[in-house]
Amino acid sequence: MSSTEAVGDFGLIGLAVMGQNLILNAADHGFTVVAFNRTVSKVDRFLENEAKGKSIVGAHSIKEFVSKLKKPRRMMLLVMAGKPVDDFIETLLTEGGVEPGDIIIDGGNSHFPDTNRRTKYLASKGIRFVGSGVSGGEEGARYGPSIMPGGNEEAWPYIKDVLQGISAKSDGEACCQWVGDEGAGHYVKMVHNGIEYGDMQLICEAYDIMKRGLGMSGKEMGDVFAEWNKGVLDSFLIEITRDILYFNDDDDTPLVEKILDSAGQKGTGKWTAINALDLGQPVTLIGEAVFARCLSSLKGERTRASEKLTGPTPNFTGDKKQFIANLEQALYASKIISYAQGFMLMQNAAKEYGWKLQKPEIALMWRGGCIIRSVFLKDITKAYRNNPDLENLLFDDFFNKAIHNAQDGWRDVVSKGALWGIPTPAFSTALSFYDGIRTKDLPANLLQAQRDYFGAHTFRIKPEHASAKYPVDQNIHVNWTGRGGNVSASTYTA
Amino acid sequence: MSSTEAVGDFGLIGLAVMGQNLILNAADHGFTVVAFNRTVSKVDRFLENEAKGKSIVGAHSIKEFVSKLKKPRRMMLLVMAGKPVDDFIETLLTEGGVEPGDIIIDGGNSHFPDTNRRTKYLASKGIRFVGSGVSGGEEGARYGPSIMPGGNEEAWPYIKDVLQGISAKSDGEACCQWVGDEGAGHYVKMVHNGIEYGDMQLICEAYDIMKRGLGMSGKEMGDVFAEWNKGVLDSFLIEITRDILYFNDDDDTPLVEKILDSAGQKGTGKWTAINALDLGQPVTLIGEAVFARCLSSLKGERTRASEKLTGPTPNFTGDKKQFIANLEQALYASKIISYAQGFMLMQNAAKEYGWKLQKPEIALMWRGGCIIRSVFLKDITKAYRNNPDLENLLFDDFFNKAIHNAQDGWRDVVSKGALWGIPTPAFSTALSFYDGIRTKDLPANLLQAQRDYFGAHTFRIKPEHASAKYPVDQNIHVNWTGRGGNVSASTYTA
Repeated sequence: MSSTEAVGDFGLIGLAVMGQNLILNAADHGFTVVAFNRTVSKVDRFLENEAKGKSIVGAHSIKEFVSKLKKPRRMMLLVMAGKPVDDFIETLLTEGGVEPGDIIIDGGNSHFPDTNRRTKYLASKGIRFVGSGVSGGEEGARYGPSIMPGGNEEAWPYIKDVLQGISAKSDGEACCQWVGDEGAGHYVKMVHNGIEYGDMQLICEAYDIMKRGLGMSGKEMGDVFAEWNKGVLDSFLIEITRDILYFNDDDDTPLVEKILDSAGQKGTGKWTAINALDLGQPVTLIGEAVFARCLSSLKGERTRASEKLTGPTPNFTGDKKQFIANLEQALYASKIISYAQGFMLMQNAAKEYGWKLQKPEIALMWRGGCIIRSVFLKDITKAYRNNPDLENLLFDDFFNKAIHNAQDGWRDVVSKGALWGIPTPAFSTALSFYDGIRTKDLPANLLQAQRDYFGAHTFRIKPEHASAKYPVDQNIHVNWTGRGGNVSASTYTA
Repeated sequence: MSSTEAVGDFGLIGLAVMGQNLILNAADHGFTVVAFNRTVSKVDRFLENEAKGKSIVGAHSIKEFVSKLKKPRRMMLLVMAGKPVDDFIETLLTEGGVEPGDIIIDGGNSHFPDTNRRTKYLASKGIRFVGSGVSGGEEGARYGPSIMPGGNEEAWPYIKDVLQGISAKSDGEACCQWVGDEGAGHYVKMVHNGIEYGDMQLICEAYDIMKRGLGMSGKEMGDVFAEWNKGVLDSFLIEITRDILYFNDDDDTPLVEKILDSAGQKGTGKWTAINALDLGQPVTLIGEAVFARCLSSLKGERTRASEKLTGPTPNFTGDKKQFIANLEQALYASKIISYAQGFMLMQNAAKEYGWKLQKPEIALMWRGGCIIRSVFLKDITKAYRNNPDLENLLFDDFFNKAIHNAQDGWRDVVSKGALWGIPTPAFSTALSFYDGIRTKDLPANLLQAQRDYFGAHTFRIKPEHASAKYPVDQNIHVNWTGRGGNVSASTYTA
């Protein structure tokens, strides 16, 4: 097809693997798709190969791309986040000649403040902008990803058929729902990726404990993950871990053991942790997962440290099968904490940014298609459908029971990791969070006393201890030493 | 003194407690100080009271303030970080009539990128700008704080006498040295505050373990801190913790137990954690300390959670004295990790921002006057003086030996915390870091395999496993399933 008339239902810019696969996916669902790429030779190669015989039309300029789309035009960008997105938007506005009512969807991993900005900017020109998270990797893009669109809600009725058509389905429901205003879609995708960082780190810790703590082989560990994939941990990431552990190199040893243990972390996981710090939400598991990647990347320093710093030798005795069951519980409980933290963060972001995030819909979108898809997310969907105002995931009956059942095994694993010298930053921080959130009186009273002592920062009194001298809800300063002044600090804040 | 001639050696704007005390301190050291405050009534009150009979002159306008200073004028701002600093700078330039060669010092807790910007902006007008961290609380400001100046180095010869004069001294050395270009001074102060967050959190965890794990009284815990203050932990924060635990309310029970356990965290600790994430440095202990404050502030949610989430009851058996010795080791070892992480961060920042940070001088500045002052920092100064290029504090003989001696006790405490249900996020993350950095082969190999599996992100091979098929230092993609394509992801980055 090379007509110059407006035959296209949907246009896509950016023919890297995700873009190509989304186009093929849309074509399979009966849409005529117009494809464009900055390096136009890629358009021709795509048309001659993967796209051949399908309802896919190429364009060799932005002008041609726009002109081939039916109005209102529905166009998706799948290009590098950052400047390329702004550049393509400008080109669409100027050379492309997009018109009021047209819809531009940014399907890349943009940072949500950029999406906030772009939504407003384009609305001022009558263009409807949508920032949409897309997760699922190559396979997801091809056969059904999770899609998280947010931005200008006027666009939703026009794009719903395409996006829900190509998205994954879970029990017949599309893993694509309208998320919310402005950057809400990219925000939810960011948190999704942060949680993905956490899930991957948890699996790595379980693998490390089995490998170094129990001395298990790749095959044995693969068998454990295969088994776990039939239970509460049933998920895409556990499934591929099984495959990876079974995958041998030509010498019949697991390829994974030859892979350099140095992971990158410059993306959305970091943004999630920074946003959590900005919003004052204790999203500790994602934080540790990002820091674990940082530490992994210091391969040279670690290698030198391994010659200077010693530790214990794991000496497992006891029932190995039972311990592996404990490990499953540690992973499960830590995962519950991570998702509880993630939903705390989103709940707070909705409040902070004035978005109406729907928790059941978010869980539904993550249920299928994306990297963190799992049986687990069905249970989360159920929890939030039962009670959309649920304050904390840990207060839902199902998860409450689950974490109580898991905690003995979890504590055993964290305690053994510490004694064996095998790092479990994510398991440990999850347990500290659990023990922290269930503690009515944390030791921060001492911290407040310290701050008042050295900086006259003042403190408040616990209501049950209020008195005439120390009334409730008031800033109190005490002269701890008998020496200091009675002024309160106003400029110095440690 | 109310002359209109230029009698002032040094001027200070901002008469909150820190400002007043710094002025009194400078006057004690023989300098004539000009004092100004936006609310001018505060100037008069100060002159009539604390400043009476001292070499302190008041000013009732910025113009008067500037005119009363000898040239080149040396002026310090001690006002709220943010817009007030910019506003005062503009007022000094316009109404005040400062001239090329004059020096403006920002002694507040400004964020270092702001100081970078201001240094450049004022240099363009011939004004020498200095951003200086000042730590020590009320008492420090009055009798000798730690001062960390950075910015326009031309200013240093003119301000050295005042700043070193009023600063703390440690073994005869001033706890004030030139830090480096632009925002380097405020950067080092930021890291100082992050470390302060960490130190305070570690003390809180030790207190919580003693209180809830061992059932100790305020007096008993005070005795422990008094004892610790004579050993390796000898420091200002341990000392004030002792005082606080001994401090009883009118009913003869410790006041600290009545203080609300809800701590703020909107400042420099958060900036340190965010900067660590930005630079990809695993500064996990400060991260957990900030998150611990976040969790503490969720008092309502914790109170509700305490009724829904249960855990074990600590049941200590064994030698209590030995366990308290272990606790001291856990605190000491975790502190070593925290400082090692802080210096890793600064080392990396120096590289990233092109600053020449002097590690021995930084340790020296923190040795006295500031909130984290301690015997410990003498040992760090020594370590970096022995070897300024020391890659990691853990590689120094003294600290290497110290952490090896400490690790059995440390592991015992972390393991017991997990089993008892008492959160130890900072002790635990420190241990995970120690066990991580001394591990040549971390489980991130599996993580890289996962990323290649689902997103074709590619991996590298460990040099010792390189082959013709999998050469070293190259991006490798494997078709893990036999189904996926052979393209590498280029837009999708999880």
